[in-house]
Amino acid sequence: MHTVNLRQKFDQFSDHWHPRIVAELNGQQVKVVKLLGEFVWHHHDHEDELFLVISGTLKMEFRDRTEVIEAGEFIVVPRGVEHRPVAESEVALVLFEPANTLNTGNVTGELTRPNEKLERL
Amino acid sequence: MHTVNLRQKFDQFSDHWHPRIVAELNGQQVKVVKLLGEFVWHHHDHEDELFLVISGTLKMEFRDRTEVIEAGEFIVVPRGVEHRPVAESEVALVLFEPANTLNTGNVTGELTRPNEKLERL
Repeated sequence: MHTVNLRQKFDQFSDHWHPRIVAELNGQQVKVVKLLGEFVWHHHDHEDELFLVISGTLKMEFRDRTEVIEAGEFIVVPRGVEHRPVAESEVALVLFEPANTLNTGNVTGELTRPNEKLERL
Repeated sequence: MHTVNLRQKFDQFSDHWHPRIVAELNGQQVKVVKLLGEFVWHHHDHEDELFLVISGTLKMEFRDRTEVIEAGEFIVVPRGVEHRPVAESEVALVLFEPANTLNTGNVTGELTRPNEKLERL
């Protein structure tokens, strides 16, 4: 039960697409992650996800359109909805989602980061 | 499924201690609220609460100490822990907590805002 400074958390790592857990509550987790480039198309069968942008510009691609999310903005992607995060330059992002949500959802590949292996900062 | 700009949400109201709901996911709600002055001592029997400060300085009083939370910082207050938010000047705050969490927890008074009456922005 202590204060968490988001910028200090982001300063502790530099790799991309590798979330770290910074808090847990009510069966949910708060994660921080840096994005650069294009992620994979995926969806989550059982989890809604919140993406809060701290710095940079996130493009969230859906099959029929793209949302642009700037610092101080967030979007909720409901379960079942295919999406692909794209960061043309580096984005610092806070994720809020159920504990054990897999980052690549229904697909597995080189970007997959098993939740049980995620570091806690 | 649209982008939410937090500053735009805060610009839509000016009263204090009156949360508005801006998103729901996984049985949780995201609320925005402005604080000024001292709240009431309370706890929540069944809900953990996350307080993310967007602007201003929040003091979270516990029975044995006080945490100071600045913009870009958050704190999680676990269920059962007595706390009192204090804002010596105005604080713009994002709350993340289970749907239907009552703002004053185990106490009822003039600051109580029944969740079912909260506006959605």
